[in-house]
Parts: sequence; structure tokens; C-alpha cells
Amino acid sequence: MIKVPDISKRAQTAPSSPVRKLVPLAEKTKQKGIKIYHINIGDPDFEAPAQIQKDLKEFAKTQKRIPYTSSKGLKETIVAWKKYYKDIGIDINEEDIVISAGGGEGLIITFATVLDPSDEFIVFEPFYANYASFGNIVSGKMVSVPLDRENGYHMPKDEDIISRITKKTKAICLINPNNPTGTVFTPKEVERVIKLAVKHNLFLISDETYMGMVFDGKECKSVLHLANDKEKQNIIIVDSVSKKLNMCGARVGAIISKNKEVMDAVFRFAQGRLSVPYIEQVIVCNALSDCLPYISWLTKEYQKRRNSFIATLEKKLNLKIPTPEGAFYAMVKLPVDDTEKFAKWLLTDFSDKEETVMVAPGGGFYENPVKGKQEIRVAYVLNEKDLSRAAELLAFAVKEYNKK
Amino acid sequence: MIKVPDISKRAQTAPSSPVRKLVPLAEKTKQKGIKIYHINIGDPDFEAPAQIQKDLKEFAKTQKRIPYTSSKGLKETIVAWKKYYKDIGIDINEEDIVISAGGGEGLIITFATVLDPSDEFIVFEPFYANYASFGNIVSGKMVSVPLDRENGYHMPKDEDIISRITKKTKAICLINPNNPTGTVFTPKEVERVIKLAVKHNLFLISDETYMGMVFDGKECKSVLHLANDKEKQNIIIVDSVSKKLNMCGARVGAIISKNKEVMDAVFRFAQGRLSVPYIEQVIVCNALSDCLPYISWLTKEYQKRRNSFIATLEKKLNLKIPTPEGAFYAMVKLPVDDTEKFAKWLLTDFSDKEETVMVAPGGGFYENPVKGKQEIRVAYVLNEKDLSRAAELLAFAVKEYNKK
Repeated sequence: MIKVPDISKRAQTAPSSPVRKLVPLAEKTKQKGIKIYHINIGDPDFEAPAQIQKDLKEFAKTQKRIPYTSSKGLKETIVAWKKYYKDIGIDINEEDIVISAGGGEGLIITFATVLDPSDEFIVFEPFYANYASFGNIVSGKMVSVPLDRENGYHMPKDEDIISRITKKTKAICLINPNNPTGTVFTPKEVERVIKLAVKHNLFLISDETYMGMVFDGKECKSVLHLANDKEKQNIIIVDSVSKKLNMCGARVGAIISKNKEVMDAVFRFAQGRLSVPYIEQVIVCNALSDCLPYISWLTKEYQKRRNSFIATLEKKLNLKIPTPEGAFYAMVKLPVDDTEKFAKWLLTDFSDKEETVMVAPGGGFYENPVKGKQEIRVAYVLNEKDLSRAAELLAFAVKEYNKK
Repeated sequence: MIKVPDISKRAQTAPSSPVRKLVPLAEKTKQKGIKIYHINIGDPDFEAPAQIQKDLKEFAKTQKRIPYTSSKGLKETIVAWKKYYKDIGIDINEEDIVISAGGGEGLIITFATVLDPSDEFIVFEPFYANYASFGNIVSGKMVSVPLDRENGYHMPKDEDIISRITKKTKAICLINPNNPTGTVFTPKEVERVIKLAVKHNLFLISDETYMGMVFDGKECKSVLHLANDKEKQNIIIVDSVSKKLNMCGARVGAIISKNKEVMDAVFRFAQGRLSVPYIEQVIVCNALSDCLPYISWLTKEYQKRRNSFIATLEKKLNLKIPTPEGAFYAMVKLPVDDTEKFAKWLLTDFSDKEETVMVAPGGGFYENPVKGKQEIRVAYVLNEKDLSRAAELLAFAVKEYNKK
């Protein structure tokens, strides 16, 4: 008998991304010549900002070496993040920032910094699915507090959060504007979470990847806008250029905290993986240093897309979707038995005029996947014409699927 | 009293990189107008290959989006790695490869795949210091088997390795050619480690970042050259373009295994962090697909640098250095009381004609730092003139330091 060592328990239980696990099926679909409208993933169809394109050309023309940078990140990139925060009204120092390879690596390092094995962290459900993955890598335990769909996925009462805090709880993880729901938590709601974290001696990990991308003039504040100096010691922000500058494939993010002990540990973890990619750290600097007009333009585009896409979906499918207030996501409840099966079927069995649509099944955004069995997450990241076609395909597919 | 939550135990004990922890001191030294010769870090002074520079220009000219790629990596990049392995005589399939953000992320994902908290992994000491960091992130326990300096840091007897294996041991970690010693393990030595890993039902994690960079016509084989089909199930290779293509700041590596359970878990971990940087995945393809002539040229350059640098150091300091057989590192035993103090002193108190030299103190390459108290690791990654000056500075500094 061939004996092969077992992979770790954490590897055995590592979750698949609901957004990405169907990619191998999608590749086969494309090989059959079928076009896929991707509303499964937050990978917008916009070009990178003109400034980025210009600075990349300049880099390519003038730089002949692609060396490591400091593990903290390039000084210029750190200064650019500092400037962005200053522009939104928050003063941070260079030593409060370490550059990460996107928000993903930022969260892994942050989780490693605050969690020991079997320590717990709280997320709001439906949650950004990769928090489960990052928690798993460091053997932490994710505990979820349900958000109420009828309440637009807004913040539950303090008691509902407190009831999930145990002696093992080390952190609350907040993402605002929210992925996957598109909800924008109000400053009052965020303040409640800050007070609660501080009162219970927890870290507050704030994922601000979508900060600034808010519709209908709603107010949205960073945790660093709202916390006082003492409260700031409990706060760690994870940020990224992926969505703000429309360059998901750049992998430039930031870990930000006023807590020196935290930043010292973050820096030591960062030393292990040596460096964030050099080219992107260079080319984001100018754009990031003056990005508010761009984010403002971008948000208007997403608001237009939201307006038409959500309205079309509601009309064609005769259903009600909680209005997304920011980012570019919505959780949509479909009249199908099981969105996991449905999402696969869209790729393997459905097509209309050689076209289909790809969605993220809802189960992966819940601790108990059954709770998301009728939901999908959609990302309205395509142009209006493509989104209209995606909505049409989705509505048609639901009907065909239910005929089976 | 202000109550602030404690960071995790793993964060408290996360090691600093011996190569990078003195960077903040070095920055101050540079601010004083003092030039530093960096032989502390393996960040070569060569330009990126001409093909890379050409393909980056082409990318900048033609591509306007910087999107995510598949979490497995861009198909073209996977095919390029496959071609490189074919060129060195190893057949692997596309499904045996996941692209990582450099060797660093590749090792973190691999460690997460094979280790649960408190599981043990074996390294050979002096070891690549970041293995301690990666082990710490996943709460694994590093156990070291000493290499003998008198034996050129070659493989110890089987018994010496077996004596460190316990019920908790899950993996042996090998790097060949070796960082930090520059030793090239012979095929027979590597075969012994393979047999031993298989016999004891352990994974063999093989870091082949420096593969091909071997001097004096010595033989160096990949573990996949040497293992039979059954043994391959225990093997995971971590590779990187950083040194082979002289682009440390690109962050493109690969995790490679014939073990389907391993690769399935690696893919799930990879989904969490979304994507490796897009630009670099594109621009490495052509160069990686046909890199053997470049690696061959590069290796000749390093051999020249080694010859002059090691000889100069030995002569000027009147000491004996085990001859490095590959990569571009050497462990040098200096006649000073404490290389940690000495390395700091080089940056804070020493200079000659406004110049100094930066080295990596040896302690961080040992489980018990005292064992490396008289050693430094040097990387001969500068041109011959600069290396000659670095050797001169080092020799002069040792004399000055001992006068104190």
C-alpha cells in the first residue's frame, strides 16, 4: 500500500471561494465558444486610470531593474497612502503604514497579528467569503453575527453582537461599504462597533477597500474619522488600490494602525515575505496621491450601473432587492431551489444565443451555507449594455431552470 | 488605565529577518550621506533581462486594464513554468502548478497546506531565516538539524536527521543550492533526503529558487529529477523567478506538486488571496520559457564574483571560508565578539571615506542565535569593483572594531 502523508486539517477544511471555485467550469464553457457575462466577481471592466497607464509607460521606458523594495513598502508608496488619508481628513504618519500585496495579504498579516490558534473573530453575515479563508490559514475561529435582509443588512443591536463575544474573541471584522451586501453602515452604526470593541478589549479590523464608493449622497466615515485617540489603539485598517483605482491585478494595499505594537509585529511578518511587487508600488503613487476626483467619477458610474441593473433585475424577475448603498455588489434572492446548483447549471447546461452569465452562489457567504441557498451575490462591474444583457440572461435562465 | 488588547503570541514571537531588520538603521546612515555597499541581501545589481524589459514596454503600450488573474495564475505563466521544467528535463502538467507571489507566499501556502498548529518541520541549520517566519505564521514548530561547517555544510548522516523526527513531524524543508551557505547538495545527498522523507511519511518541501546556479561544473538535480513516481507524492517544490531572472521585485513564483490532494488545497488557499500581480505574470512568460541560456550566463558572472570576493576576503581577513558551490551566498566566520553588534556598528559608527558595508548577522540563521554569533552571511550580488571595495571595507572595519 502506498503511504502518503496527510495534508493539514486546516488544508482539508480550507474553504473554496464562492466567487472563484466555479472558474474551472467557466473555462470549459468558454472553450465551447460560449460567451460569459461575469457578474460573479468584483473585477470591473474599466481601464486603469490614465495616470497609471502613463506612469507604467514611463517606468517601462526608464527603469531597467526590478528589485525588492523595503518590506514596509516603498517610501513613495507609503507617502501616497498618507496623502490619500490626509485628503479624506485623516492624519496618519508614515510609521503607521505597511504596504501589503493587496487587501488579501493585508488581512492575512493582520489576522496573524491578532489571532492565535482557536482564537475567535467576529464577522457580520453574509460576510466577505475570504475572511473564512484568512481565518483558516492562521487557525482562528470565525463567529458570525447575522445581518437582517429586511433591515437592508444594517448593523444589528449591540446585544446581538455582544451575545457572540466569548473569552476567546480577539477581534471584530468590519467592511464598510460592505461586500457582499453593498450596505453602507452609518457613522452612528460604526461608532457603536468601535465602542463595543473597545469596551470588550477587542481589535477592530476595518476593511476600507470600498471607502468613498457611496451612492445617493449617503454619509460614510472611516473608523479613523470616528474613533478618539484611545480608541484608535484598538483599530487596524486594511486598504487596497484594487477598487479605488480600478487595478485589481496590481496587488498594492496597506495595513494602517496607530498601535505601535501592532505595526511592529506587522513589519516583522512583512519581512518574511520580503517585498510587495515593485512596478505597481511605483506606478500607483501619482494616481493614489490625488485619487478623490477619480473615485468620485467612478462612483457616479457605479451608481448609474446600479440604478439600471437592479431595476432591470427586479422587473424581469419580479422580486425585491435591498438597494445597495455603495461598493458594487448586491445579494439577490432568487426563486430557485439551490443557487449552487443553479450557478453550475448556468455554466454547464444553459445558454442563449451562445451566451450565459456567471454568478457567485450565496452559500459561501454564510457560516451555514443553507442560509444562502436561495441567494446569489452579483457585482455590477460591466458596462450598462452588458449588464442589461446579463440581467436578461439571468431572468431567462431562472425560468428555464425552473422548467426542468 | 488604558486597556489595549494584546497582539497574538505568534505576533509577539515573530522573528525579525536578520537580512532586513537593520534597514531602519541603514536608512539613517544614508541620510548622513554615507554610501552603503549592500552585501546583506540577495538583491543583485543586474538589470532585468532584455526580454523582460522589452515585454514590459510592450505591455505598457498595449494593455489598458490591470485585472485579477485566475487564482491558479495566468495560463500563459503556468505554461511558461511547465516549459522551464521541460527544458531542465522534468515533465509536469499544468494542473501540477499554482502561481505564487514569489517564493515567500509559495512557502506560506505550502506550510499552511502541510502543518497544523504545533506540527513540526525540519530545516538544515544554518537555515534560510524566513522559514522561521513562515512556520510562525501557521503556528508550526521549526526543528533544526545542524550542518557541519567543516564538511562544507553538506548533508549530515541519516541518523542525525532521524533523531529529530517525532510523531509531530510533518515535513522536511530543503533548499538546494542552499541559502545561506551556498552549498550544492549532491544528487546522492538529495536522494537520501527523499528516501528518508518517504520512509517516515513526511512531505519534502524543496525550495529550488537557486536551481541551475551552480559553479565549477558541479552536478545539481531537482528533487523531481531524482524521485520515482511514488516518492513524487511526498514532494512539493517552491520556485521563483526572483533570482533566475533577476527580478526579485516581480513576486512571481510557483508551487509544484504531483500530489493532487496537495494541489487542490493549495488552490483553495490561493483563492483566498485572489491573484498574483498581473503585469509581472504577463512579462515573465517569454523570458521564463527560454531562460536556460540566461541562467547559464548569470551563473558564470556569479562564479567570477565569488572567485574574486571570497579570495579577497580570505586574504584580507586571514581566514578560511568554505567555498560556496552555487547561489551567491557564503557564511563567513569573523574574528569579532558578536556580529549582531558588529553589523549595527558598521551602520552607526563606522565609515571610511564616507562609505560602509552592510552584512546580515549570523544569529538569525540559527535556532539558538549564539551559534551564529561570530558569523555573517554575505551575498556577492554587486559588480566586481564594488565587491572588492566591500571586502576592503569589511576587513578594515573588523580591525577598527577590535581596537575599541
